[in-house]
This record gives sequence, C-alpha cells and structure tokens, in this order.
Amino acid sequence: MPEFLYGHWAVIEAMRAGRRKVESLMILDRNEKKGSIADAVNMAEEIGIPVQKVQRRILDDLADNGNHQGLVLRVGPYPYCDLEDILQVAAKRNEKPFILLLDLLKDPQNVGSLIRVSDAVGIHGIIIQERRSVAVTPSVVNASSGAVEHINVAQVTNLVNAMKELKEQDVWMVGLDVGPNIPPLDKTDLNMAIGVVMGSEGEGLRRLVRDTCDMLVTLPMRGKVGSLNVATAGAIALYSAWGARSWDGWVHAQ
Amino acid sequence: MPEFLYGHWAVIEAMRAGRRKVESLMILDRNEKKGSIADAVNMAEEIGIPVQKVQRRILDDLADNGNHQGLVLRVGPYPYCDLEDILQVAAKRNEKPFILLLDLLKDPQNVGSLIRVSDAVGIHGIIIQERRSVAVTPSVVNASSGAVEHINVAQVTNLVNAMKELKEQDVWMVGLDVGPNIPPLDKTDLNMAIGVVMGSEGEGLRRLVRDTCDMLVTLPMRGKVGSLNVATAGAIALYSAWGARSWDGWVHAQ
Repeated sequence: MPEFLYGHWAVIEAMRAGRRKVESLMILDRNEKKGSIADAVNMAEEIGIPVQKVQRRILDDLADNGNHQGLVLRVGPYPYCDLEDILQVAAKRNEKPFILLLDLLKDPQNVGSLIRVSDAVGIHGIIIQERRSVAVTPSVVNASSGAVEHINVAQVTNLVNAMKELKEQDVWMVGLDVGPNIPPLDKTDLNMAIGVVMGSEGEGLRRLVRDTCDMLVTLPMRGKVGSLNVATAGAIALYSAWGARSWDGWVHAQ
Repeated sequence: MPEFLYGHWAVIEAMRAGRRKVESLMILDRNEKKGSIADAVNMAEEIGIPVQKVQRRILDDLADNGNHQGLVLRVGPYPYCDLEDILQVAAKRNEKPFILLLDLLKDPQNVGSLIRVSDAVGIHGIIIQERRSVAVTPSVVNASSGAVEHINVAQVTNLVNAMKELKEQDVWMVGLDVGPNIPPLDKTDLNMAIGVVMGSEGEGLRRLVRDTCDMLVTLPMRGKVGSLNVATAGAIALYSAWGARSWDGWVHAQ
C-alpha cells in the first residue's frame, strides 16, 4: 500500500533520507515551480522519480486535508526498525544509549513534535507500541518536519516487554511523571544509558509501565494552570537529559 | 467590542481569573450539561452570569471555527498591563524579574503555547509589540489553555524601547539566537533579573532587537533536521532559566 506524504519538509526529508521507496512527486498544477516546490522538483529529478502536476482537490484528498503546501510524495511504507537496531546506533556513535519510549500517545501533532526534538538532541531511537497508539502516519511525518524519516522508530507489540528487554541491556528506564515525592529531573543523574518514558495525553503513564520504570522524575511547575502539553514537557525533559550528557555530539558553529 | 472566548480551559480560566468583564456563557443546545460543560455552567451560575443554549453553527461562527468544545464565553477586551505592573509582580513576590519578550511572533498557537509555559515557570509578565505581531486574541487564549487570563501581558508600541526601559531598571536582556560563537544557554548565568527575548517564526530576532540584547544564548542542536519550532525552543529556554533560579516558587507535593 502506497502512502502519501505531504508538506514541504516531509517531502524533502523523505527524499533526502532515501529510506523508503519513492514512487512519484505530485505538485499543484497551477504552480510555477517557485521556492519550496522548485526545491522538491529538483530533488525528484536528481533521484530520477516522475513529477506529476495535479489539481488542488486531488492533493487535498491525498493529504487528507492536511497542509500540503502544494506537495505530495507517493512512497512505500515506513521502515520500522527493531530494538537491536536502536542499540546499534548508540554503539556505532560510541554513546550511551539515549532512547525515547512513548506510552500510547494518540495525537500525531504531539508525536511528530517529540520526534523532531528527538532528532535535535540525538536520540538513538524511538519506541512505540503497535496497538492503541499512533503509528508513523503521514501526519506524524508532517508534524515532525520530516525528522522521522531519518530517525529509527521501533514498533513493538508490548511496551512493557520492550522496557524489560532494554533493562536487561543495562538501559535505565526513566519515567516522566507527576505526583508527590518524585524528584525534579535535574536532581537525577541522566548521564547514563537511559530510556525516557512519556505517558499519553491526559492519562500519563499506565500503571504497569510506571512500575517497570527504574526511576521517576518530574517537571517542576508553578502557576495557575499547572499543566503542560505532553510534547512541551517531553521537549524539556529531553533537552535536560542531553544537557546532563554535556551536549554530546553537538558541533558548535565557530 | 465584545470578544468570544472558546474551548473548555479558555472559558473556565477566564471566569476563574475574573479579570475581564464576563457577559454571558453560550453552550451547545443539544448538550446535556455533562462533564466539562457542566463545570462551566456551574461556574457561570455561581458568578451570576446568564447561560444561553445556542445552535452549533452559531458557536462555530463565534469561535471562528476553532475547537470550541461546545462552550463560548462573551467577554470584554483583554486587560493589558504596562511594564511597571510586570516589575511590581516581581517585587511583590520578592523575586528577581523574569520576563518574556516576543519579537513579532505571528502564530497564535506558538504564542499561546509560550504563554502556557510562562505560567508554569512563574514568568512575571510577557511583552509583545502592538503592531506586526499577534495580540491576545481568542485563539491565543485557547492555545494557552486559559493561562493568559492569569498572567500579565503588556502590549508596547516599540519592543526595542521597552527593552531599553527594562535595561535601565537593571533587567538583563537575553536573546535566544542561532549562529556561530553564541554560548549554549546553560553556560550563561540566568539566575538574575532577566528578560528572555524570542524571535519570530522563521525570521528570528530583528537586527535592532538583537543589538539591544545584553547577551545572546543558543540552544544546542544536532541531528538531520536541525531546527525547532519557536514554541518548543522557548519552552526549553524558559525551563532552563527557571532551573538556574533553583525552581524558585515551586511547591513540591510531598
């Protein structure tokens, strides 16, 4: 079954990453190949895939009314990896494993946003559960600005089992949680082999997932509203963990 | 001119904060006053404002097709404050000023998200420029989950002048920027009177705004995509600054 990626960065990064089979690029027929459309067309011509002009309503339809910006890419399925692949990315980079685990997140926007941050901090891979959770759909690709095309995502049958497997490989499971007696995340040493576990929107971590964590950390919070969106909380947690790892792998422009 | 706030938290927090004149609550006519609608109706009855059942298309219209969740609140204009009010919040709490300045941000979703984080970290006030920037519209209120109803927002004619005024009051202007030779934000002492200055989507800080900053800090970044959404970057910067201030004002549940 072909999939239809949409939006400038999703289309560009899928072609750039070259991990999926790319079948064709569809662009808006009225378009004069300016700016971002021209970039995509040039890239498609370079890698030798056909470019088709189509009507707006067809693009709207293929993009499921998402913001396609005049660009839709017909591709093969997303190339999920397995746990072992993720650990190998860490080994290859000679870094302590740094993994993100998502417990039944539902909103493609949140998942995409967390994947984009994961790319920025150098996460070695992301683990999601196959059922009752969002998969890497075109809307996730779009929300990640295409970052998911470069990063390893493993889809597992059971998140708790995956956590146990990682624990056997000496990866510590750190759950982000809310509640009494949970230390703030900067009071925990995150400079080790870790998997950061994020709970779902509204629900948080499931009990069994929480119980399987080696430790829990919390995000301090004051104010009147007193809650954060899961993508925002996750971004802060991942940056905090990366900071604890001394911004490992950051090539600072001089 | 009345404004129409929409969505559960926007409506609840506006009534709870009680800073604007609240005129009436409109709820979906088919609704059976369950859950979040019932909460809003109870609150409206407590503060003595009329509740009206209206048709979905009217709510859709008043909410400008935003996700109103069956709730629209008719209110007076947003109560902007001035710079002095913001400094007084800091003085009253006996804290070093901690302010957020937004340079021509355009997207209500980003601005709302930054305001929600500002509330969570205890920012004393937010400064936005009157022209060429988003104002506190109902969509910003919605995106902030109502947090903006509790926080001080000053709308100034000229952002650079506001920065200069704050500098005269010994508040340091810290710009979040991208580029060579800019130190990462954890290498700068943020435990002082500061205003964090964020540039707009895509454009970053304007030259004059950047030049008026006392110092610039950057967010380390690696990975293939190499950029973050401004709301995500801002959330990380604000939490980093609050962490440097030892999570001042956080009442940790025991």
